[in-house]
Amino acid sequence: MALCEPDWLHYGRGVLDLAFAPDRAAGEPVYRQLERYLHDLVAARRLAPGERLPASRELATSLGLSRNTVNQAYQSLVDQGLLRAHVGQGTFVSSRSDTGSDRGGAGASPRALAWEGLLARRARAPITPRGFFAHPGPHRVEFDFRAGRVARSLLPVAAWKRASAQALDELPALAEATSPQGYAPLREAVARALLARGIVCAAQDVMIVDGAQQGLDLVARALVDPGDAVAIEQPGWFGAAAAFRASEAHLLGVPVDEQGLSTDGLARLLRTRRVKLLFTTPAVQSPTGVALSEARRRELLALADEYQLAIAEDDYDGELRYEGPAPPALKTHDRAGQVIYLGTFSKALFPGLRLGYVVAPRPLLARLALLRFAADVHGNALAQATVARLIESGALERHVRRVRKLYAQRRAALCEALRAHMPDGVAWKPPAGGNTIWLGLPAEADVAQVFAVAAAHGIALHAGAPFAFEGSDAAEDADRHLVLSFANLPRERADEGVARLADAVRRALPARKRRSR
Amino acid sequence: MALCEPDWLHYGRGVLDLAFAPDRAAGEPVYRQLERYLHDLVAARRLAPGERLPASRELATSLGLSRNTVNQAYQSLVDQGLLRAHVGQGTFVSSRSDTGSDRGGAGASPRALAWEGLLARRARAPITPRGFFAHPGPHRVEFDFRAGRVARSLLPVAAWKRASAQALDELPALAEATSPQGYAPLREAVARALLARGIVCAAQDVMIVDGAQQGLDLVARALVDPGDAVAIEQPGWFGAAAAFRASEAHLLGVPVDEQGLSTDGLARLLRTRRVKLLFTTPAVQSPTGVALSEARRRELLALADEYQLAIAEDDYDGELRYEGPAPPALKTHDRAGQVIYLGTFSKALFPGLRLGYVVAPRPLLARLALLRFAADVHGNALAQATVARLIESGALERHVRRVRKLYAQRRAALCEALRAHMPDGVAWKPPAGGNTIWLGLPAEADVAQVFAVAAAHGIALHAGAPFAFEGSDAAEDADRHLVLSFANLPRERADEGVARLADAVRRALPARKRRSR
Repeated sequence: MALCEPDWLHYGRGVLDLAFAPDRAAGEPVYRQLERYLHDLVAARRLAPGERLPASRELATSLGLSRNTVNQAYQSLVDQGLLRAHVGQGTFVSSRSDTGSDRGGAGASPRALAWEGLLARRARAPITPRGFFAHPGPHRVEFDFRAGRVARSLLPVAAWKRASAQALDELPALAEATSPQGYAPLREAVARALLARGIVCAAQDVMIVDGAQQGLDLVARALVDPGDAVAIEQPGWFGAAAAFRASEAHLLGVPVDEQGLSTDGLARLLRTRRVKLLFTTPAVQSPTGVALSEARRRELLALADEYQLAIAEDDYDGELRYEGPAPPALKTHDRAGQVIYLGTFSKALFPGLRLGYVVAPRPLLARLALLRFAADVHGNALAQATVARLIESGALERHVRRVRKLYAQRRAALCEALRAHMPDGVAWKPPAGGNTIWLGLPAEADVAQVFAVAAAHGIALHAGAPFAFEGSDAAEDADRHLVLSFANLPRERADEGVARLADAVRRALPARKRRSR
Repeated sequence: MALCEPDWLHYGRGVLDLAFAPDRAAGEPVYRQLERYLHDLVAARRLAPGERLPASRELATSLGLSRNTVNQAYQSLVDQGLLRAHVGQGTFVSSRSDTGSDRGGAGASPRALAWEGLLARRARAPITPRGFFAHPGPHRVEFDFRAGRVARSLLPVAAWKRASAQALDELPALAEATSPQGYAPLREAVARALLARGIVCAAQDVMIVDGAQQGLDLVARALVDPGDAVAIEQPGWFGAAAAFRASEAHLLGVPVDEQGLSTDGLARLLRTRRVKLLFTTPAVQSPTGVALSEARRRELLALADEYQLAIAEDDYDGELRYEGPAPPALKTHDRAGQVIYLGTFSKALFPGLRLGYVVAPRPLLARLALLRFAADVHGNALAQATVARLIESGALERHVRRVRKLYAQRRAALCEALRAHMPDGVAWKPPAGGNTIWLGLPAEADVAQVFAVAAAHGIALHAGAPFAFEGSDAAEDADRHLVLSFANLPRERADEGVARLADAVRRALPARKRRSR
């Protein structure tokens, strides 16, 4: 899971610098202030000709203004010719030829190229997860429940520096282009380490990728033609949905219950549709935290065999378990070579690393390597060599043990605080692994209100909405969920943080529902 | 340019371990020996069920056997049921259910999934450059003319270690997920550095990518729908062809002459076809080394404006020039926002680094960032921070000056040696920049023979064939070219190396043509 930082949020919003803050004491209407602000951005070319502005609803939410204020500012700039509105497409900065200004002296200025019209179909698809940018966080984070992070207090900085120094000594050899399949010693180390997950494979069966996301993207590019059906758990990991959508897959949701992915639901789907690929997270279902039961695993593999279904198994938190050892990976029982196994180093080490691996049947792995050549040739050999050293020295394993112990404590503290403070109707289960809790709010809760009060309380967290794709049956349910990570919530802060969050939830409920459990 | 290493070659060949060497003294026919060798690979599962074997022609070439020998071995294994032959598709290792062996005790074994049948259209396209694996190199490299490398004697190991140590001190901050657009200080450093290429842009206009190849791939994914026409210089950089083919582009070649890309040729194309995008290397045409003339640059931009053509400018060796300062980038004159500018750190630093950048009009850059989120979320922040430090400290600029000086000497030495030793009819021009020479052999030369003798002489080099895509008008011409890099050919070794290469060329000519010029 890789939820992104403010810089990226700006990008998602259309590269708009969101530094606008209205001066409500100024006497000037806020829409005029916003109008002048946007005008200045265009004049300074920080908003470029042809650039699309955020939808007025989105901008209003993120700036804390009414939608009407934003609409008034936009309309006034359209009237002045600085913006253009296209029905059904949005509002754009006018190009120079639109406005007639800024023409050079030497003949007519060229027309600005209309990039929106040149975009490929897949680049117009809704790749950004649903509701990804809906809720701005607090100005100062006092309680950090955000997912996609690791415990900051346990970053393996010293071990990384040691391993990095060893890898740097190999720089002359690593400086040349290497294999799209990855640095051989790291592939060997991964193959050995995977024995602990029950997977027997050789270095040749392993491909190193720039994070499991790249593995998913390459799998999508290898297998998905536009319109091909891909089944995906719902709620489910939104990065997978993004990768498959970028290949123009037709996404089909498979329900998830307290045993994990519903094999009955999958069977119903397979009886009526040709499905090429299933994406699943059996070790720790993302985002619900449920482990797929043994019975379901057998059913799933039997279904895959019956329908010649390929399975992409994302074992992203397989090593971070809290209730006994993890069940072996689905790949362990994969006698027909139907399972593509994806793993990552981002959870155990740190997300900024962007290193993961794919274990796949060889005919497919060879294709993935060819596609990777076209995509980015190969990965950063120094980073790969550094991780190889970390595995070989045992430092990675020691680090994972420390992380698991810390997370187990923080998980217990968070669950206890939730039991103590949350009002009736709030539902969750302690996750089997990973570091997040999928928290269901009562149907009557106003989720935007929860985020607004939480932000005022200094609480940063993520919404559940992105974990259901547009049009998914699970969308309504996901909309009333929060994702709470305990990775950066120290035990001694859990009670206070959850009490504040519970207050935000309570205030977002109708008055009669506000009592604590 | 990133030509790859043996490990990757194996992958391209279908993961086949090419350690087979016939024992010609053994009395046993060679095809029997090969048959046993392949049988053992299958038995040991180093060749897996469903895996495709190399075409017999390809395997014969790489093993130095006759094609008939390979065919006999394949046929015998097909007769035994160990391999299957599919007309028009190739020869595959039989799956366990094909052979009936290896069935488990508990019920029927599942069928092996037929991956070849699941592949998406784009994964079946010929992504691998034409002739990429045609010529095996020498066992021991005595003279290294291979392209896609930098001078090994000048690797900036000490500077890299210093910058890396500084970046590592920032590890806690860099450990979290960052922006798909890249580490902000590096974007700022790139924006400042690009002033030297005549490009005025802000950090917000820059996106960091994992090598220019990823930039090309993202541009292809943003703009190219299956069947869209993309124009590309011919001969031209094969990585670009691979990226566009992976998006199912219809490639159209534009001829190149002594002034660079032919604008007349492009105009003819644009009059008859809707072309979405042109890929060009104006600073140093890859592979011919020609710089695009000033007149052509003006004509090109006028054509782009007239036909609303997007241009991808790969400025890959813009800073490595030998005859006066480089002309400013095409992007400099891009008043209509039509040019996507791509640059790389792999040439100045080292290819294993995989770091480059894209400067693009903002509406497009925002799409590229969204597509990158789906592709691999973002790049390795530590590598990006290290390069930022190298730029800020001035170390990168000092390094580039040293590299330029060394390359200028080696370029002169190589040209002098070519003049001294090459037979009549061999044609080349000193390149305006970069580190390769595009060497044309006489039409009568047997190129496979050149490689065979060169390998025997300890010479490693690359063929021209990959620089023309399948079906290109330039294919025949590219087939009789070699790419010679002087990056790793010390001045004092140039005469001997070229003398040996000239001998290889001479021996590949009909007897009457063998005299030196």
